[in-house]
Amino acid sequence: MTAATMKALRKMRPARGAAVEPVAVPAIGSTDVLVRVRAASICGTDLHIYDWDPWSASRIHPPITFGHEFCGVVEKIGDEVHSVKPGDFVSAEMHVNCGVCRACRTGQSHVCQNVKILGVDADGCFAEFVRIPVRNLWKIDPAIPEHYAAILDPLGNAVHAVLEGQIAGQNVVVTGAGPIGLMSIAIAKACGCSLVFATEVNAHRRGLAKQMGADEALDPTEEDVVAKVREATEGGADVLLEMSGNPRAIEQGFQMLRPGGRASLLGIPSEPVTLDLLNDVIFKGATVHGIYGRKMFETWVQMTELLKHKKLNLEPLFRERLPLEEFADAFSLLENGQAGKVLLYPDGAPK
Amino acid sequence: MTAATMKALRKMRPARGAAVEPVAVPAIGSTDVLVRVRAASICGTDLHIYDWDPWSASRIHPPITFGHEFCGVVEKIGDEVHSVKPGDFVSAEMHVNCGVCRACRTGQSHVCQNVKILGVDADGCFAEFVRIPVRNLWKIDPAIPEHYAAILDPLGNAVHAVLEGQIAGQNVVVTGAGPIGLMSIAIAKACGCSLVFATEVNAHRRGLAKQMGADEALDPTEEDVVAKVREATEGGADVLLEMSGNPRAIEQGFQMLRPGGRASLLGIPSEPVTLDLLNDVIFKGATVHGIYGRKMFETWVQMTELLKHKKLNLEPLFRERLPLEEFADAFSLLENGQAGKVLLYPDGAPK
Amino acid sequence: MTAATMKALRKMRPARGAAVEPVAVPAIGSTDVLVRVRAASICGTDLHIYDWDPWSASRIHPPITFGHEFCGVVEKIGDEVHSVKPGDFVSAEMHVNCGVCRACRTGQSHVCQNVKILGVDADGCFAEFVRIPVRNLWKIDPAIPEHYAAILDPLGNAVHAVLEGQIAGQNVVVTGAGPIGLMSIAIAKACGCSLVFATEVNAHRRGLAKQMGADEALDPTEEDVVAKVREATEGGADVLLEMSGNPRAIEQGFQMLRPGGRASLLGIPSEPVTLDLLNDVIFKGATVHGIYGRKMFETWVQMTELLKHKKLNLEPLFRERLPLEEFADAFSLLENGQAGKVLLYPDGAPK
Amino acid sequence: MTAATMKALRKMRPARGAAVEPVAVPAIGSTDVLVRVRAASICGTDLHIYDWDPWSASRIHPPITFGHEFCGVVEKIGDEVHSVKPGDFVSAEMHVNCGVCRACRTGQSHVCQNVKILGVDADGCFAEFVRIPVRNLWKIDPAIPEHYAAILDPLGNAVHAVLEGQIAGQNVVVTGAGPIGLMSIAIAKACGCSLVFATEVNAHRRGLAKQMGADEALDPTEEDVVAKVREATEGGADVLLEMSGNPRAIEQGFQMLRPGGRASLLGIPSEPVTLDLLNDVIFKGATVHGIYGRKMFETWVQMTELLKHKKLNLEPLFRERLPLEEFADAFSLLENGQAGKVLLYPDGAPK
Repeated sequence: MTAATMKALRKMRPARGAAVEPVAVPAIGSTDVLVRVRAASICGTDLHIYDWDPWSASRIHPPITFGHEFCGVVEKIGDEVHSVKPGDFVSAEMHVNCGVCRACRTGQSHVCQNVKILGVDADGCFAEFVRIPVRNLWKIDPAIPEHYAAILDPLGNAVHAVLEGQIAGQNVVVTGAGPIGLMSIAIAKACGCSLVFATEVNAHRRGLAKQMGADEALDPTEEDVVAKVREATEGGADVLLEMSGNPRAIEQGFQMLRPGGRASLLGIPSEPVTLDLLNDVIFKGATVHGIYGRKMFETWVQMTELLKHKKLNLEPLFRERLPLEEFADAFSLLENGQAGKVLLYPDGAPK
Repeated sequence: MTAATMKALRKMRPARGAAVEPVAVPAIGSTDVLVRVRAASICGTDLHIYDWDPWSASRIHPPITFGHEFCGVVEKIGDEVHSVKPGDFVSAEMHVNCGVCRACRTGQSHVCQNVKILGVDADGCFAEFVRIPVRNLWKIDPAIPEHYAAILDPLGNAVHAVLEGQIAGQNVVVTGAGPIGLMSIAIAKACGCSLVFATEVNAHRRGLAKQMGADEALDPTEEDVVAKVREATEGGADVLLEMSGNPRAIEQGFQMLRPGGRASLLGIPSEPVTLDLLNDVIFKGATVHGIYGRKMFETWVQMTELLKHKKLNLEPLFRERLPLEEFADAFSLLENGQAGKVLLYPDGAPK
Repeated sequence: MTAATMKALRKMRPARGAAVEPVAVPAIGSTDVLVRVRAASICGTDLHIYDWDPWSASRIHPPITFGHEFCGVVEKIGDEVHSVKPGDFVSAEMHVNCGVCRACRTGQSHVCQNVKILGVDADGCFAEFVRIPVRNLWKIDPAIPEHYAAILDPLGNAVHAVLEGQIAGQNVVVTGAGPIGLMSIAIAKACGCSLVFATEVNAHRRGLAKQMGADEALDPTEEDVVAKVREATEGGADVLLEMSGNPRAIEQGFQMLRPGGRASLLGIPSEPVTLDLLNDVIFKGATVHGIYGRKMFETWVQMTELLKHKKLNLEPLFRERLPLEEFADAFSLLENGQAGKVLLYPDGAPK
Repeated sequence: MTAATMKALRKMRPARGAAVEPVAVPAIGSTDVLVRVRAASICGTDLHIYDWDPWSASRIHPPITFGHEFCGVVEKIGDEVHSVKPGDFVSAEMHVNCGVCRACRTGQSHVCQNVKILGVDADGCFAEFVRIPVRNLWKIDPAIPEHYAAILDPLGNAVHAVLEGQIAGQNVVVTGAGPIGLMSIAIAKACGCSLVFATEVNAHRRGLAKQMGADEALDPTEEDVVAKVREATEGGADVLLEMSGNPRAIEQGFQMLRPGGRASLLGIPSEPVTLDLLNDVIFKGATVHGIYGRKMFETWVQMTELLKHKKLNLEPLFRERLPLEEFADAFSLLENGQAGKVLLYPDGAPK
């Protein structure tokens, strides 16, 4: 590699905004990999960083290159790296866990409390190049399209939520049809679930939910979704995938769950949530899973197998593809609240 | 059997109180078993029925014989009963499930929505005799002492909660040291758990918790139990057994749970509970199980094996043993709020 | 119901053969259901009974009506039956388990040692009517086609084998493409598996395997199936579904399994099998499940959900549909060894 | 550290025997730890290497320091090591897995096919110092006695086998009472199992089995162990822990298993094994786990918790404690075939 500097989308100051700046291409250690970014995708978290919300102010230390959803091609490898080689098509798990705490050592590294997230706690992927520890790199089958490979991070969240328990032959309710909710519909269908009911207040997103495979997309402001799902499933859905973080949707989600069902909670509530724990969890004998991140790396295996064998049609999720320099347009598109992934291309967007 | 009538503790009217009355000995059908009650135990639910609280007023239809914790001896069997014979020492699962709903047919009959509970929805065991469908009868090894056999119902709740996930080598916090909380301490210890921390506001119960095997019995009104448990366990308990139903204890319980831990919720909250779902469940990747009743009959196998092989010392749990006629004394003992089981003996209490 | 007698395919004597004879329509008890048989299907076991092999000679007590795969319509119900009514479309689990042994009481009633199989130990379904205990009856959604409903028994075997562990995103090898092996291919595909490799010596069956969805149908007499599967899967299949009972196929199946994989063994070996237990199970850290019957009734829920939502195309499995009287033709068709289900219709075959 | 050389027990030539030789103290890399060995324990594998059996001849490349069971104290750490510090009491998982293969990335690193075993494929612990990658180091609570800490490797094998499924309330049969079989008895008891039956041909080992907590220690050459266990357990043990590798014991073990039971196979058969797969696995609906190594690091957490809280009395397992120089005596003690661990002390044995 000859380039000494590269362009990167950087948070320069503790305030709203960001800028494309020239910075040094990252130097790599013996167990690192340097990846030339092909496509990066914008997460809700990136919007928070861009907007400099209270969470960002408490966590982010500018200057920093942000972004944590991407795919690219291996440019250069450290001396002790043997599992990938230059030219390989890759993505990465951006949660760099410590590897030695109890969670890491018992199959739960996704909840390591010493995690450093690339793009949050250290430089991320909104740049021409990104440095990844080889342990976190993920080689991708070339059969997987580039734009799909750019969104493995949120897709993994969805796969984690859906496959945390049995899904074949199960009736499913998905509360909230943002990008991860939408993905989870396609995943559940691909894995043999019975009916999928999506609940979502936004009409455009309800349309997308149908496109992704939902049997019904219900508007909780217009109809009694609890009664409807209970009736259609003769007593409640087997599986609740909570993707909204909305307290009212969470409450309804639990009411729609059958006795003995399981709930995967992934949506991020902005405040404490009041639950009828007695009737909706205890007397129901329900199982509830908190879903955070992706299982390292069970989830990555599952999702890349599903993609490699073309089990998932994710096309309805994609919106604009822009060059990195047009980040401001990208963020403003997302701030209007419609679902859909916007991709940034450091080397220029595809036609 | 020659007796045409028997004495029974009956709820005669929709009001506080109860009375020992003569009633006909139950007639049995072809798949029923008539059991001569040896010892019965009083549950919190029985207190509610006795006191005629709002729940009782909505559920109980007097006149009815109540009581659902007991052991006894088979007196008589129906024509199609082959698995037990007169003279066998028995107890019973008093939740008579429908057997044909989805829950019943998928290993979750403990959450059957068509359940009828003997002692609540039909005549129970506070009587000389009780009729039990053979499917619900449970034969007991004579090595198990009579007073232990009388409390298998609540012991099963505790076994269900403790063994819903891994327990060997796990650090455990038990929030609430009522009878079931106390039992769960002994069960966890018998199954190879590491440390048990009990939190309980009542000093007498804290003393019992230590007797049952708790390594620490903490008073949440006097010390920062969350900080203490987190420090002693280097980041949080592996397992939360919530036995109080108290919203503040539930909240603290989740705060004491380590990332990736599991919570079994059994205590009955009297109102909706507000949880920091984001930090205490979702970001933690926690698994939460609602615990209701006993698994039919996995729990019964587990608990009778533990008792048969003398893994559990439950002696500290027992208080008075009274003849059935002294029920008023029994209920008043329990209403003072101390933990401990009070037994009633239709044929006269042991000396 | 007015008919006092009905026609039934009966094994009259301890010798080869069978005959359609008039017998009394079964009387039903209070918890039984009388079903008018619409379509019945012939199992390999029925062939053994017809041929009077040594197993039959040791187990079957003529005279008896055999047959245990069927669907029909409820004709009449016992006094205590509330979960179905005349006119309902039904099938049944023909393994009548005891309900009170340890296996039955711990979610393993499919391996009850006191089981009585209708069609083997008592009168079965090759008749105009069959008597079923209500506990064993299974109500079917009318959306499920009649010929599919007639083969739920073997389909359940396949579902049990496939769903005994994770299947989404897994590479699968199916050894043996008889009817249950073929079904398992379709089930695995419907539940999101990656590649399916079938191994089968019979060319016709290999063709069916491809029709059912296998990515590759390999002839172990012509190519090195172990090397091929290991290479295509980069180290071995995640899941082995052993459907042949053939010792050489079993050996190869284990060799094709990756370290950490799981094997579901369903095929019936006719003699003891020699395994390289050290390299193929122990050093591999493999998990092996013996698969017998259907889980009562988890399997029934799963398979009827899959069918109701049209996840399975089973059409390639079906061959002839004959009136009951033409049983001799049916058995002789099956004895030629080709896969495929032959259906018998007591009321006349569909055009 | 000042020592430039150290003494080590080395395999110098491809032939029987070994010698204590001076070698350079290992240099450490940035993620390595140098450990001063306090006590090392001899494994059966070490005997094979000493004797130079065919397996050793095919795998071991002299000169090499062997030995892989030990404890010690951290002497020096690499630049990037933060989780331990000099003076910490430690042991290590000696299976150095690759970290990037599918097994490693899906919670099955114990069956990584790229594993390098320290003491087999690279220098091990029969020396004053041993170099360990920090990922493989395991910090030990000082409450755990030194001689226990020296045998965590085989103890982990036993914990892995016992805790691969439910153990509380289960009847267990252990076939083979060598060191790992003996350990597994104590572990099962500590975790709440019901009865333990050990089968073992060697009278001394049967005596040890009783000391470790077995309820019965049976001689399969003297009595019908299958009939005895089946009768005592009313149909078969719930759990088989196969620790012998002996084909006859394996066969009997499966015959002693109840329908629906689980078998953990750990003993190493020296040849293929013939099983009645139909009756002992398939018709039984049994679950069989191949057990190899220790789960990284679930097993290490479990076993050190059990030891830290003094759940296991392993004293009967220990025999001689010798200085490293007396290795020849140590190996000859072990070759006489009695169970029991012999420890070697590079810095001199304790009095």
